[in-house]
Amino acid sequence: MAQHQKPVLVIGDKNYSSWSMRPWIAMTAGGIDFEETHVKLRTEETKATILRHSPSGTVPALKLGDVVVPESLAICEWAAENSKTGPLLPVDSVARAACRAASAEMHSGFATLRKECPMDILARETCHPISDACRSDIARIEALWENCRHHFGAGGPYLFGHFTIADAMFAPVVSRFITYGVHLLPESADYVAAASHHPAYQAWVAGAKLQVETGI
Amino acid sequence: MAQHQKPVLVIGDKNYSSWSMRPWIAMTAGGIDFEETHVKLRTEETKATILRHSPSGTVPALKLGDVVVPESLAICEWAAENSKTGPLLPVDSVARAACRAASAEMHSGFATLRKECPMDILARETCHPISDACRSDIARIEALWENCRHHFGAGGPYLFGHFTIADAMFAPVVSRFITYGVHLLPESADYVAAASHHPAYQAWVAGAKLQVETGI
Repeated sequence: MAQHQKPVLVIGDKNYSSWSMRPWIAMTAGGIDFEETHVKLRTEETKATILRHSPSGTVPALKLGDVVVPESLAICEWAAENSKTGPLLPVDSVARAACRAASAEMHSGFATLRKECPMDILARETCHPISDACRSDIARIEALWENCRHHFGAGGPYLFGHFTIADAMFAPVVSRFITYGVHLLPESADYVAAASHHPAYQAWVAGAKLQVETGI
Repeated sequence: MAQHQKPVLVIGDKNYSSWSMRPWIAMTAGGIDFEETHVKLRTEETKATILRHSPSGTVPALKLGDVVVPESLAICEWAAENSKTGPLLPVDSVARAACRAASAEMHSGFATLRKECPMDILARETCHPISDACRSDIARIEALWENCRHHFGAGGPYLFGHFTIADAMFAPVVSRFITYGVHLLPESADYVAAASHHPAYQAWVAGAKLQVETGI
């Protein structure tokens, strides 16, 4: 990639696109200078527009010159390598492996939670029944968070103390827990409060509001 | 982790456990000294045995002292960081991002192929009908492989030239294509031939044979 070309992150609607939120948060938390291309979801042109940017047919996608990097997790790793604000992965080797495991479990897991509680970052549901399978997903997430924080979280309010790609990967889950008023253990509620007040999270929410208000 | 403790990789049956195969191949290709714990799948004790090793209830799991790292992709990254044989990730930053994207796409994708063509590494099916959805998965894999090799594969027969974690992640797909006699483009068939002759792949197959022959 030529040095003068900014990376371009192609994303979906900020209110709904949980996969887009993850790398955007990581890149923003890492202070990386990037351009943003928004593809409006759920229109007749959405599929064709995404395919023009990303051969896998999915967003997010990071364009680095003529190479397209789809996959939120890979973009988060790229953000960690190019962070200007400090490490987005733990410095300790074992903690780093645990951080990647937490991120990867989010990447391929929790299908029921994702289906039953789709991200709708500006909404607040006062009564939203949750199935047993969904409760099981939530319980596993709470156990995973607690395990990360117990072993590695001494240095700060995030899963591995300082902010890492694992926090970016779980940001949409944090938003779902808020939207659907999910009853959580006190430790999990503390984490949700901290994560949802991170400046990058707040910036994403502000962007979602702007998109909704302007109809873009 | 104390220096004298070897890492322990907990895996399922070598003939069937595609997720176990991936990090085992990466760690073996990386020349890493590790112990192996085999959990026999599909028995009454399987679930309880796995939970004793891995709180997420899944194999593979890498035990680093008292920390358990589940998730094949995270273990592959750990193997890349601890490789004794050379890099298991591309040295170039953009190629590395593309390698991680290919690995992550495998990690969460291709559900139909995985369901319709389960790994059965020693079997050979002479006639195995494949659905349209499965053909679509295969076409995407072939396009992804071709894209990796076109951009980054000049230095060798693997997806990124030399052997990387992307090859480890796709090793079970290679085995499925062989087992089910899937008709492939010539370039894909060349890659399947190269990948299935890698010493780590061959060692895993030999292990599968031994487990089946000895009934362990």
